[in-house]
Amino acid sequence: MGKEIETESYILAPDPYAARLTRAVTGRDQNGEITEINVVEERPLTIFLNAREIVTAMTIGDYPEYLALGFLRNQGMITDADKVLGVEYDEESEAVVVRTDQRTRFEDKLEKKTRTSGCAVGTVFGDMMEGLEGLKLPSGEVKLSDLYALSGKINRTPSIYLSAGAIHGTVLCEGGRPLVYMEDVGRHNAVDKVAGWMFSEGISPEGKLLYTTGRLTSEMVIKTALMGIPALVSRSGFTAWGVEIARQVGLTLVGRMRGHRFVCLSGDERLVWDADPASVPEEPRKSGRKGAV
Amino acid sequence: MGKEIETESYILAPDPYAARLTRAVTGRDQNGEITEINVVEERPLTIFLNAREIVTAMTIGDYPEYLALGFLRNQGMITDADKVLGVEYDEESEAVVVRTDQRTRFEDKLEKKTRTSGCAVGTVFGDMMEGLEGLKLPSGEVKLSDLYALSGKINRTPSIYLSAGAIHGTVLCEGGRPLVYMEDVGRHNAVDKVAGWMFSEGISPEGKLLYTTGRLTSEMVIKTALMGIPALVSRSGFTAWGVEIARQVGLTLVGRMRGHRFVCLSGDERLVWDADPASVPEEPRKSGRKGAV
Repeated sequence: MGKEIETESYILAPDPYAARLTRAVTGRDQNGEITEINVVEERPLTIFLNAREIVTAMTIGDYPEYLALGFLRNQGMITDADKVLGVEYDEESEAVVVRTDQRTRFEDKLEKKTRTSGCAVGTVFGDMMEGLEGLKLPSGEVKLSDLYALSGKINRTPSIYLSAGAIHGTVLCEGGRPLVYMEDVGRHNAVDKVAGWMFSEGISPEGKLLYTTGRLTSEMVIKTALMGIPALVSRSGFTAWGVEIARQVGLTLVGRMRGHRFVCLSGDERLVWDADPASVPEEPRKSGRKGAV
Repeated sequence: MGKEIETESYILAPDPYAARLTRAVTGRDQNGEITEINVVEERPLTIFLNAREIVTAMTIGDYPEYLALGFLRNQGMITDADKVLGVEYDEESEAVVVRTDQRTRFEDKLEKKTRTSGCAVGTVFGDMMEGLEGLKLPSGEVKLSDLYALSGKINRTPSIYLSAGAIHGTVLCEGGRPLVYMEDVGRHNAVDKVAGWMFSEGISPEGKLLYTTGRLTSEMVIKTALMGIPALVSRSGFTAWGVEIARQVGLTLVGRMRGHRFVCLSGDERLVWDADPASVPEEPRKSGRKGAV
């Protein structure tokens, strides 16, 4: 019953029982006794942009196409100027190719750059920061009542996190409703999968909020901003640069969110104080939700 | 008093009070009241191998030289066949260059490879896996008494983790003694800094153990194995492939270690059952140590 209620609002919810995503492994516990636990699967996925091999990502392997699309978009390698013709995943070679109608500006840059400096990913940082220049996120409201509703629902959503651990989740939300919950071994993959899904489905970032179990690093903030989403919330902590960038682009940044507590270090003008924090129940000790502080 | 006792065994201990590493930031809490919290610094550091730009890493910036050295070694870009002449860090340009006496085999490969496929880091995965072929870690003992002693000491060591969060720690240990504790925004950086330190100081991996707050992913296991360290321990969880690789190279892999509990999924033949788990005190609730499950 709990599962249906918590997942009925989702367009995409995690499927912790999907056989391919976790595995039972046997070992010994502290008493030397044989014990069996569930651990999350992790596979390499090599992402190609047209003919160029870009990176090999470690992923649980549930949405390789969304991951590839979202990664390339969030790294600024594919922009709105590029028309994506298709995304092809080949399970056997553990590779996914994203094809555009014309060679991207990024590939042109790669051609020039790698002759002298070596690495695509090395130049990417510069590209990501470039994508932020002049970027201003839309105004909008972030209601406390919605934050508390989301946090409660997401914490109760059955997920691989709860069954096997070692994983991070990122949830695309609208108002008090969680829409798409992606998980992966790396928090950046989870965000990229959300981005890939939004791009595939033509979903607008307006009025949306991103909730993550991961830490609010500069990279997380940059990705959220490049996705055009005006608010980012986490149970976990911040980095100084993540806060700086959030303030630069006008992102609402809420972290250390547990029970009724949180800290907002950027964009608090969007917050609507429509709930009494004292009325929010404390998290039960064994809620299973742990922050990667 | 607590601080001195816990850090006296360390060769390198974290300095949570180092001004450059955290920053006080002001925001609002859930009641709309102004609040000030400490957040960890994070800066880009561009790593060069001779003339080649390799990657830009996000780091707290305390040990750029160790990070660069360790990263290049752990990615298999610098091997024992290469003689490192020097490591130069330039604070203003936020760059660090590692120089070898001759061009590395990796750079030769880069030259050939990027003409066709684009990315240094894309090929690196293959290099890392190659480094594991035929690798067998030395035998040795991992005593339960040492595991418990380490875990207690490390949990009580003052660190940025405790004061500002959003950070991962990796500690090089010997027997029951923590030696070098590195922290960083990314767990991989923390491991790479340990590797860089060991390489700089000519420290042997024999008889050593690596303790990390981060999850035991394939990349963590691979790095530990490439460093020649026979045991890896974490509060956090595992991934299936991390376990597979650990078993392949004969690494002792202990995870989900909290209080007296743990699970060993690989290399349990090294374990020496010389302590009674029941005698180990439970972690106090507010120990401050959270696992990135």
